[in-house]
Amino acid sequence: MRRATVPDEQWLADIGPVDGIELSVWDMSIPLTETSWGAEVGYAVHPYLTPPNRVANAAGGAPGVTVQLLTAGYDAHLAHLPAGVSMCNAAGVHDTATAELAVTLLLASVRGIPEFVAAQARGEWLPIRIWPSLADSRVLILGYGRIGQAIARRLAPFEVALTAVATTRRPGDEWVGEVWGVADLPTLLPNTDVVIAILPLTDHTQGLIDAEFLAALPDGATLINVARGPVVDTDALLAELNSGRLRAAADVTDPEPLPADHPLWSAPNMLISPHVGGATDAFRPRAVRLIREQLRRYAAGQEFVHVVASG
Amino acid sequence: MRRATVPDEQWLADIGPVDGIELSVWDMSIPLTETSWGAEVGYAVHPYLTPPNRVANAAGGAPGVTVQLLTAGYDAHLAHLPAGVSMCNAAGVHDTATAELAVTLLLASVRGIPEFVAAQARGEWLPIRIWPSLADSRVLILGYGRIGQAIARRLAPFEVALTAVATTRRPGDEWVGEVWGVADLPTLLPNTDVVIAILPLTDHTQGLIDAEFLAALPDGATLINVARGPVVDTDALLAELNSGRLRAAADVTDPEPLPADHPLWSAPNMLISPHVGGATDAFRPRAVRLIREQLRRYAAGQEFVHVVASG
Repeated sequence: MRRATVPDEQWLADIGPVDGIELSVWDMSIPLTETSWGAEVGYAVHPYLTPPNRVANAAGGAPGVTVQLLTAGYDAHLAHLPAGVSMCNAAGVHDTATAELAVTLLLASVRGIPEFVAAQARGEWLPIRIWPSLADSRVLILGYGRIGQAIARRLAPFEVALTAVATTRRPGDEWVGEVWGVADLPTLLPNTDVVIAILPLTDHTQGLIDAEFLAALPDGATLINVARGPVVDTDALLAELNSGRLRAAADVTDPEPLPADHPLWSAPNMLISPHVGGATDAFRPRAVRLIREQLRRYAAGQEFVHVVASG
Repeated sequence: MRRATVPDEQWLADIGPVDGIELSVWDMSIPLTETSWGAEVGYAVHPYLTPPNRVANAAGGAPGVTVQLLTAGYDAHLAHLPAGVSMCNAAGVHDTATAELAVTLLLASVRGIPEFVAAQARGEWLPIRIWPSLADSRVLILGYGRIGQAIARRLAPFEVALTAVATTRRPGDEWVGEVWGVADLPTLLPNTDVVIAILPLTDHTQGLIDAEFLAALPDGATLINVARGPVVDTDALLAELNSGRLRAAADVTDPEPLPADHPLWSAPNMLISPHVGGATDAFRPRAVRLIREQLRRYAAGQEFVHVVASG
């Protein structure tokens, strides 16, 4: 019998029994050594929407434990990872909801939903005019991992021209002829109507979308950020929005949460969602499938999937 | 040489020369007989966003003319159609933009965009919670012509279960196993999370979505209307919205435009766009392709496509 933990009773019920696994509840609010089964635990699911320093509690005399994050992003957790502790992210679990939100923000922004919501609050039926559409747009997906591909799959039927960019150039897939490299951006951006950022936050991607990047986009282009706030230079974006040249929507900001008096809230043609990419109804059934797969592997003595840090 | 008309100089420029066709400008504001070429005209493009009674001007001593509408809907024009005049609608031209808007309204409504826009206006970062997602929803497309299919094609990658309903039952296609009939609705509705209405307005569809229809939907279901306002019983919808049981978004209303003091504006979980389904940038290139095809047919002595009324 191998021992594993989940953060609350609801997870225990949703996951159900797994052969060869003794499953307990531990929410990481106390050190693992202070629980009755302590160091026996080999796999511990981190609470979903809690601060990243909780993972440090896993360290309490329990090297060898693998912490399962329920987020796709793990940059904030790396600093708190105790020695000897491994970490898996929830790759795949949030693809569906995050890709769905990326398309939602893009369509809502381009098709005028923020204007319609504001007019609705005034009880005003806006006069007839020709609005923008997404169709015929040239869409560049910046970051082409699993979520990038999930976005491409959803956008493909919308009569758009898709381009994908990853760290380095590689062959394409069902949706894009090839995957371009970041070094190709200066050539690609002037021929891009929409940029969707879904790249991980690293030393190389921090501030990648800066004044120069934005200036390379044609007038009227749209930036969608479903990656991390700091991949965009907020001041540079603000300048472009205030000049009326670009349009943007973001699920993530820098700083985050955005303070009440931050100028991004009221910048023209800006749509902000409060980091809701993954936090939807679609999350739990997909997380349960991943955790059950990990527990099956643990019971069988196999390697975990989606290991992002080895202790 | 055969003679045809378009409503303004911009259309003349966009359409360009067509072999065997003499193209003039006529915006239908004066009778055709008062123009210098009068009764010679066999094909006349109606102005896009103007009242339907303009088509009556085509009657002025010009039976045999075929009026080309630039809208997909033609119900409002039938009453004004003079004897001897035929009419084509713009089938296909608006599929792209209307299907795009249907998906936009659905995603925006389900993913909370109206709430985010309102919070943004207050400078408020909403607290973390689990929001609804579209994924895993059972979506029923009510009306399965060209636009219904264009909606199905766009929704297929969103991990939803698609059901299509038309007047009568028939075999399915790439996106749905079969097309159900309106008579099957009482069985289908209790197992439906989203209804997208994109059926034509006829004597049979007026008020089809009434109190009984809405009551058959499960709690929390979403209604999207991109058809015509009167297919929905507005009072019945209002009652469901005010009780908090259903959610809705509509590009069309009854009455339309909605008066400033109409209760639908402020009904909970209601999103309204001001009939912008077809009026986008996607319209003109697609309309130009249709008109050029019709002119080619006219020059070759062939039948027009998309004839909806024969004079």
